[in-house]
Order: sequence, then structure tokens, then C-alpha cells
Amino acid sequence: MRIGVDAMGGDFAPGVVVEGVARTLVDFPDLDIVLVGHRDRIGFYLEKYGIAGFPHLEVIHAPTVCEMSEPSAVSLRAKKDSSITALARMLKAREIDAMVTPGHTGATVAATKVLVRTLPGVDRPALGASMPAKEGRFLLMDAGANTDCQVHNMVQFALMGEVYARYLYHRERPRIGLLSVGGEDIKGCELTKETFKILEQLPINFVGNVEANAAFDGVADVVVSDGFSGNVMLKCAEGLARATGYWLKQGLTKSAARVIGAVLAKNAFTELKAHGSSDVIGGAPLLGVNGICIIGHGGSNPVAVRNAIRVSAECVEFGLNQRITEVIAEVGELAQPTEKK
Amino acid sequence: MRIGVDAMGGDFAPGVVVEGVARTLVDFPDLDIVLVGHRDRIGFYLEKYGIAGFPHLEVIHAPTVCEMSEPSAVSLRAKKDSSITALARMLKAREIDAMVTPGHTGATVAATKVLVRTLPGVDRPALGASMPAKEGRFLLMDAGANTDCQVHNMVQFALMGEVYARYLYHRERPRIGLLSVGGEDIKGCELTKETFKILEQLPINFVGNVEANAAFDGVADVVVSDGFSGNVMLKCAEGLARATGYWLKQGLTKSAARVIGAVLAKNAFTELKAHGSSDVIGGAPLLGVNGICIIGHGGSNPVAVRNAIRVSAECVEFGLNQRITEVIAEVGELAQPTEKK
Repeated sequence: MRIGVDAMGGDFAPGVVVEGVARTLVDFPDLDIVLVGHRDRIGFYLEKYGIAGFPHLEVIHAPTVCEMSEPSAVSLRAKKDSSITALARMLKAREIDAMVTPGHTGATVAATKVLVRTLPGVDRPALGASMPAKEGRFLLMDAGANTDCQVHNMVQFALMGEVYARYLYHRERPRIGLLSVGGEDIKGCELTKETFKILEQLPINFVGNVEANAAFDGVADVVVSDGFSGNVMLKCAEGLARATGYWLKQGLTKSAARVIGAVLAKNAFTELKAHGSSDVIGGAPLLGVNGICIIGHGGSNPVAVRNAIRVSAECVEFGLNQRITEVIAEVGELAQPTEKK
Repeated sequence: MRIGVDAMGGDFAPGVVVEGVARTLVDFPDLDIVLVGHRDRIGFYLEKYGIAGFPHLEVIHAPTVCEMSEPSAVSLRAKKDSSITALARMLKAREIDAMVTPGHTGATVAATKVLVRTLPGVDRPALGASMPAKEGRFLLMDAGANTDCQVHNMVQFALMGEVYARYLYHRERPRIGLLSVGGEDIKGCELTKETFKILEQLPINFVGNVEANAAFDGVADVVVSDGFSGNVMLKCAEGLARATGYWLKQGLTKSAARVIGAVLAKNAFTELKAHGSSDVIGGAPLLGVNGICIIGHGGSNPVAVRNAIRVSAECVEFGLNQRITEVIAEVGELAQPTEKK
């Protein structure tokens, strides 16, 4: 199995990515890694982490980088030789089985949409973010790939998320919830109300509307959302977690007693931080692309990079995209735009 | 000044509400309170908190209650003699200057829309939720009154929020941000992109797109949103705060050292909780209604009830609705549906 990895993606590239790849090569000796990025900038780290000339590693030169700050359309048009577009082209040509980037989500979505295209029956790919519930986790999708969605997009997100949760979360009958503003069936906006009617008819374990607070209680394995609200939820959780850390730190340094208390209970705070961390998960799958694509957090550390690569390999192993294509085909017109009905 | 209070609203009604009213009568001797609810169920608490027959207190009987669990449309149609509809009627008739309910948001929005109507130039009322930033707070609006919004609704939310932040938050030039999925101007969904173009032209301190995570960093005083995404954000924050409390408690009881540490640092956790608490704020204004209406959290305690009443009195004092009407009129067609342009 060959996994393509974007060496230039994320806030700490390429060092962190190369270190993550080094760990992967040790932990998963059966994997072949294709590392794509600027050869001169990677070289130093290949030496540093002792994987220069490693048999299971191939390095491919890509001269430009999609900067995190630039719009995705610009990246795609102006940077035809960036690591992300190079990976997308290789994925399209089946030169790699999966691609992993801890980089620019927008640029990756744009590049895969245009170059790799979507699976048969899938209109638009969606980003599945793994969110922490009180116990366990849930998959929020779409977490931001599509700002404006139609009913058939939401239905496809639900089906793709269902398959992902079944194979990657090992849930036999994953509970699929629809992100809404009230628990009752009648609550919601026009989009969710129409989506509700279709989800009810699908051969999935649909548990109805799920409010954002209930999602953290763990009432669903997959929470279906348009990409705008989903992204608001993802970033709200990120922002509040950061603010909570800030308030805690402030509060715990206010007096000598509190500082001592904080030292004694230190591991509890480390554990708290781990709940919000995406390192274990590694990355968010961009589902619906005709090729496995995992997008890591921009702030990924080497463990996160390694785990993102592991997840991508699992997706290939499970034949995830084959399963998604089958399920979408089985459901037929219910998952397609209404014009066709 | 006469403030109408819904005795039957919230999870701990009517006891908590009556206690909150008792505190208000002591702290604000100039206020007249009209307490609306089921006379038999209120009586006991009036005696308990020593305000039975109090000169500044009038009790009005309303036989039915809008249960938190029932749909708002049902409440409005079937329960014409509920405390919420009674208050809305009194507000309409100017028998009270403001109404306060720690109750059913949906029923209150429906009752005020139908019975009290909106201010001149305002199409739909919006709920302004006070959210905690790292330092200070921001007003999120709409936090859930309107699930489907058009551009002119968003523009009106921005203007109403601006006036509210100016008078209630005492900000001279409140920073108005637009909730979106990217900081750059070009990011967003169709609704936010169109809204952005109008907000740029208004005589307000518009700071552009604000991502949900940046909002918690305190980059804006008012965050403008449609009611669906706003409600997702509000409930996401609620849910994650609750989950964080759960994880902390779990972590802090795992070993003897951690328990001792938690005891020593106890006040830090109390302070952390206070950041997320709405007690100080008391309630969320339903802005745009032709009469002051403050909606408290269903879980309000007596302090929250007292503070919601205080906020409603401040709104009356500042002539908030007069200001909103003036600002909306000044802006003219920019704040109205495009058909008119």
C-alpha cells in the first residue's frame, strides 16, 4: 500500500511531518510512503530522523507550497506544482492509494474536487471531524467543506458518515443524528426539515434531530450538518476549549494554595487537554472523493501525522470508498437531487 | 416603571422566580412588579419570601403554563390564558413597560411576534445571547429566534445588536463581527457573503468576518448570525462546558493527590464555572419586539431572575427601542428587503 504525504502541510512543516513519517515507517513496516514537498527543505529532516534513503520511502519534489493564509482558489490556479495538487494528481492516477495532508483544508478540498473528482453518486465531498463526547467521540460532518448545502448533499453526508462510523469506529449500527436547534422532529430550518424527511426513510439507524449540546452527551455517533453550521460548531468547540484553558490557568495561579493544588492535580489537566486533542485521531477524512484523503489539523504534531497516515491506511484496507459507492447506489434516488425524482 | 414577570417560567418555577422577585423588590425599591402565574401555586412562595401583599407587587392569575417540552405554536394556540400570552397582551397594551420570562423561548418569540408585533422597520425579532470571551463578553445574535434568515434580517440584527452593546455594554463604538467560516472577506456562505456587502456600508464599526473560535478571543462585541448557526454555537458552548465539567470531575477524583489538589484549588473551579454562567447577565434580550422582552435561561436561579429584571429596567430607562427604531430608520433601505431597493 502506498500513501502520499504532504510534507509541506501544517504550521510546523516540514519537520513535524517528516518526524511523523519516520514513526510510521517504524510502526507500520508494510506501508510505502511517498513524501511530497520541497526537496531542499525536507532533506535536513530526512537526515535528522534517519530515514534518508529508507527503502519504503520515496521523496517527490514539489516546488511551491499552499500557504495557510491564502484562499484555496488561488492555491489551485496559481500553484499547479504545489505538494497538494501533486498529491491530488497522483491519487487520480492511482499512483498512490491515499493522500494525507496536515495542511490547507480549502486547497485540499478544491484540488481533490477538481482533479480527483467525487465517487459515483456523490455530489460533494464532506469533511468528517472527530469530536469529543463525554464518553467516546462522534463524527461531525460536514465540518466545513461545503458552506451552502442542499438536501441531497446532507443525505449523502449521512450515508458516508454511516459507513465511516461502521468501519473506522467499529459501530455495528451507528446512530445518525441531524444537527438541529430543537430535539423535536418539527424543529429546524428549511434545510434540516426536508433532510429529516429523507433520513427517516433510509436503511440507517436515524435517531432524529440532535442539538449541539446533546451531541457532547454522546447521543449520536454521526452528527449530520451543512458545512457552515458544522464549521461553526467545530470552531466554537476549539475556541471555548482554548478560553477554558486560559480561565483555568488564570484561576490556578491566583494564590499559593491554588498553585500547589494545581501541581497535585496536574495529570487531571493533562487528561482534560487530551479530550479535546485531535492527536489520537490524527485527521479528518474528506469523504466522497474518489480516492482516500485525510486532512490533519494545521497544528498536528508527529503523533497526529502518524495517526492520520494510519487512518488513511485503514480506509484503504476496509475498502471504504467501495462501501460508500455501494450504499449510495443501494439508496438510489433518495440520495439524489429532487429533479431526478 | 412596571415590569411584568412570568412566575411560571423556567425549570424551578414558581419558587425561584418569586425569590428573584423578592430580591428585586428589596434592591430596586422604585420598580413595580407584576407577577403573572397560577395564583394557588405562587401563594405559598409569596408567604415564604415575605412579599405577600407587598405594595410594589401585583399578582395576576394565569391558569395555564407553557411547558418547556411543548412546541411553541401549540403553546400559543391552545394556551391563550398562559402566563406568557398574558404578559405579551399586557406589553402590547402598555400596561407594563417590559416583560421578563425565564421560560419557553419559542413560546415567547411566537407570542410577542403575534401579539406585540415588531418595531417599525424591523422584520423579525432576534435573541441576543451574552457569551463569555476570554476577557469580557460578546453578544451573539440571533441566538435562535429565526432558523431561516434573509440578508435584511441579518442587517437588522447587526443594527439592533449595535444599539444594545452601546447602551447595555457601555461600548462607545461596539465592534460588530459577522459569524463566518473564515476570517477573510471572501469566505462564507451565500447569506453571509451578501450580508457582508451591506454591513460594510453601514455607519457601524464593522470588523468583518469572525470565526467562532476568534469570537471567544474577544475580537468583537457583537457577533451577527442567522438563528440556526447562532443556536448551534450557543448550544455547542453549553454542551462543551458541561462535558468539560464532567471530564474535570472525573480527572480530579482519580487519586488522593488529585482530590487534595482539587480542594486546594477549589475556588479556581468555582470561578471557571462563573465564566460560563448566565446568572450575572440574567437573560437574553429579544430585540426588535415593540416592547422590552427579556428571556432568561430555563435553569435560572433567583440571582439570574433578579438580574434579568434589572436588565429589562435598564432597557426601558435607556429608551432602547426608541434608539433601535431611530437607527433602523436612519439606515433606510440598506436594512430592508432588496425588493424595495
